[in-house]
Amino acid sequence: MKLKSLVLSVSAVLLSGCGTMAKQQEYNADLIINNGQVLTVNADMQVIDDGVVVVKNDKIIAVGDEKLLEQYYAPKNIDANDGIVMPGMINAHNHLPMIAFRGLGEEGISNRLFAYFFPLEAQKLSRELIYNATKLGAIDLAQSGVTTYADMYYHMDEMAKATKEVGLRAVLGETVIKFPVVDAKQPYGGIQYAKPFIEEYQNDPLITPAYAPHAVYTVSKEKLQEINQLSEDYDVPVLIHVAEFPNEEARIKDPTKATSPVEYLEEIGVLDERMVIAHGIHLSQHDQALLKQADAGVVYNPMANVKGATGIAPAWDMFRADMRVGLGTDGPMSSNQVDLWRTLSYAANMQRLKHSDRTIMIPEQVIEMATIGGAKALHMEDEIGSLEVGKKADIIIVETQSANMMPSYDPYATLVYQANPSNVDTTIVNGKVVMEQRQMKTIQLDDIRQSVEAFESDIADFAKELSKKAIKSKSLMD
Amino acid sequence: MKLKSLVLSVSAVLLSGCGTMAKQQEYNADLIINNGQVLTVNADMQVIDDGVVVVKNDKIIAVGDEKLLEQYYAPKNIDANDGIVMPGMINAHNHLPMIAFRGLGEEGISNRLFAYFFPLEAQKLSRELIYNATKLGAIDLAQSGVTTYADMYYHMDEMAKATKEVGLRAVLGETVIKFPVVDAKQPYGGIQYAKPFIEEYQNDPLITPAYAPHAVYTVSKEKLQEINQLSEDYDVPVLIHVAEFPNEEARIKDPTKATSPVEYLEEIGVLDERMVIAHGIHLSQHDQALLKQADAGVVYNPMANVKGATGIAPAWDMFRADMRVGLGTDGPMSSNQVDLWRTLSYAANMQRLKHSDRTIMIPEQVIEMATIGGAKALHMEDEIGSLEVGKKADIIIVETQSANMMPSYDPYATLVYQANPSNVDTTIVNGKVVMEQRQMKTIQLDDIRQSVEAFESDIADFAKELSKKAIKSKSLMD
Ligand SMILES: [Zn+2]
Ligand SMILES: [Zn+2]
Repeated sequence: MKLKSLVLSVSAVLLSGCGTMAKQQEYNADLIINNGQVLTVNADMQVIDDGVVVVKNDKIIAVGDEKLLEQYYAPKNIDANDGIVMPGMINAHNHLPMIAFRGLGEEGISNRLFAYFFPLEAQKLSRELIYNATKLGAIDLAQSGVTTYADMYYHMDEMAKATKEVGLRAVLGETVIKFPVVDAKQPYGGIQYAKPFIEEYQNDPLITPAYAPHAVYTVSKEKLQEINQLSEDYDVPVLIHVAEFPNEEARIKDPTKATSPVEYLEEIGVLDERMVIAHGIHLSQHDQALLKQADAGVVYNPMANVKGATGIAPAWDMFRADMRVGLGTDGPMSSNQVDLWRTLSYAANMQRLKHSDRTIMIPEQVIEMATIGGAKALHMEDEIGSLEVGKKADIIIVETQSANMMPSYDPYATLVYQANPSNVDTTIVNGKVVMEQRQMKTIQLDDIRQSVEAFESDIADFAKELSKKAIKSKSLMD
Repeated sequence: MKLKSLVLSVSAVLLSGCGTMAKQQEYNADLIINNGQVLTVNADMQVIDDGVVVVKNDKIIAVGDEKLLEQYYAPKNIDANDGIVMPGMINAHNHLPMIAFRGLGEEGISNRLFAYFFPLEAQKLSRELIYNATKLGAIDLAQSGVTTYADMYYHMDEMAKATKEVGLRAVLGETVIKFPVVDAKQPYGGIQYAKPFIEEYQNDPLITPAYAPHAVYTVSKEKLQEINQLSEDYDVPVLIHVAEFPNEEARIKDPTKATSPVEYLEEIGVLDERMVIAHGIHLSQHDQALLKQADAGVVYNPMANVKGATGIAPAWDMFRADMRVGLGTDGPMSSNQVDLWRTLSYAANMQRLKHSDRTIMIPEQVIEMATIGGAKALHMEDEIGSLEVGKKADIIIVETQSANMMPSYDPYATLVYQANPSNVDTTIVNGKVVMEQRQMKTIQLDDIRQSVEAFESDIADFAKELSKKAIKSKSLMD
């Protein structure tokens, strides 16, 4: 195929040589990717060997075979070198700035959330840390082929700034919670904080602002309803943790007759198509039906959920029911990786284990979930999630020349079970090359190394003390 | 730390400058690794910051802090550059040449073993393929920090040759099974095949020859007993699949009163300290007690076992009972990866899921299982599995400078949950540098690329046809 590509390049030169010199300069595209196996992830899951993807401005304007090389000319051409060309992956649930804390509290702390996690955030989080940590996280994401991520955290304006510097797409939900937090001294201060943030980024090409009420047991009914109204007014998503733990409805202050958090959300009138629920581990069939009826998104976080021993979501059932199911990692203190590569195999393997059936959730379906599935969960399937004409140019190239990628018979199986983050060669977001041949083109890791080392050493000592206390502490939840 | 290391190097030069020139030439070691965080994985799980490991010939002769740099001089010095220096990992169960088939049959075939796997092997396996595929697999292993692997397959002399060319250590078990196979036209022909192989490699510095009866339901009682006697005569290990499926004892031709495959092995007198059982998913407490009493090894293959929906072995219970438990990937058609990185996280996460307890199987314990645990499972703990004086110099350096490795608070958590194969910088086996700064020093991937592409295209078309048939076929097992 390399030879064929060479021949084509030569003919292009010859052809243009036979025409006028001006002709060659008449670019009708900005970027052309050729010589790759193109996984379109369109409705037919079409795969194009020796495929070509043509980009103009921020959009894909053509996808097809090598004949497109005769129709389109661009100043920038990328030879995929027999690699896999596919939609950028979508990590639909994260708390990216917690990358500052990843690897902490792994020594077997039972009440980790309250005895470790929250005190750590209370002591060490700052506007500056969120900005710096987001940069590190966004570089890690870009280098591993995630082009869009959805996040629930604080100081979302800082996250937006850092994300745009790296050049990724993100849905950023400002957290609303009943405790004082880093960017809001008053309970539920996130609602106030979100207002200028949403207004600033409402029409941003990369950032989709959102609300992120933490969970049904940490946000009151009134506040959930207020957020629902605001999200309608602004037409922005609402990201929320739901059914991560059993019987979350029992932890609600003024319980209703709802027998599940999903029923509760429905009952109080906030379960709608703007809602994206993370986890959904403990969902009854009725809950699943309510989610489907509301056209809400669901994010399956298989690796984080088993690492934390919380369980396995009924993702296969929901996927088969044609619901909006995407994949997420949860935060870097939950799964420790921000990219989706390991999560891909967990996504399949946990459903197989749950159903005792090795034939379900085949690699093709996993890649679907990691791309168009995530787009659907975030209600962005008209913009991203597949390589189709008219969609935003969010594209990655995965090389297949390394030992771990050989042989490569079935591109989906190669991606789900063989590939590692380092096999991502090129990352393109919104038509812009963010990484090429593993070199970052926006900001360099070395540019932020000092700031990372600074927060790392600041946090390390505090964390050691905290760990000693946390192991001794009793659960606040019990 | 880099600065400190520089100062030390300068002082060494100055010191030797003050002495005689001859003094500097009086090397008392062959290789010194410094400036790393050394995880010894000794009985105290000692970690040495700014640690030093000194190698002479094939052995470790000193492990300690930077003071060792004043005592030892070597012609070769490796600066670990603040990375993690640890024992090479041990993949204690594999069928490495099946890497030729990895990625095949992933489209949801229920009777995959009989309708796909065996026909593929019957048609496509050859002496040459086993040699070439082993080379690819061994490069993949070396590049991802596995220094020893245990394998059950065919033509083990070819595997030994390829493994030694790449420079890895291996326990290679010649398969014995009641069917005709690639290297034995007669049932149980592996027993014959093994004889010259064992005699040739009995005293090899890298290869430990072994017998590999496939399973209790594919090898007769008499043959298991014959192998047991031969393994005693030659003093070699016996690798076998046990309790991968429920009720394997029911599939035995002449069943005894045994209610489990482990009881059966005990009853027929072959369960001893030379036996290494792979999987052990369905083990009763009595089975576990029998295995402990026999001092047999057990290999936990968590990723393969959930991908294949077979279940979760009671690995935590056996680990806590101080049994000989190592980690494996199973073959490349089962887990698709030959390295242990993903398996590390599955090892922990599957036990947490099984026990609904996020505090068990912490990263330190996982690394223990992946190194000294594997050595114990193979009864090689006097030779490998930790960085201690007198042990073979099987050492890897894992860099911590990439985005995915930042921050790095707890080296064990960083390894288990953040690291990817590409973070392995240096691989040393038996004192010899096999890979340094990710460059292979023995054979190059490019040297074998053509042979891989040749078998890949030969297999691809046949596999496509087979897949169509296999999806339609009924299970031979039912
Ligand atoms: Zn979360
Ligand atoms: Zn096996």
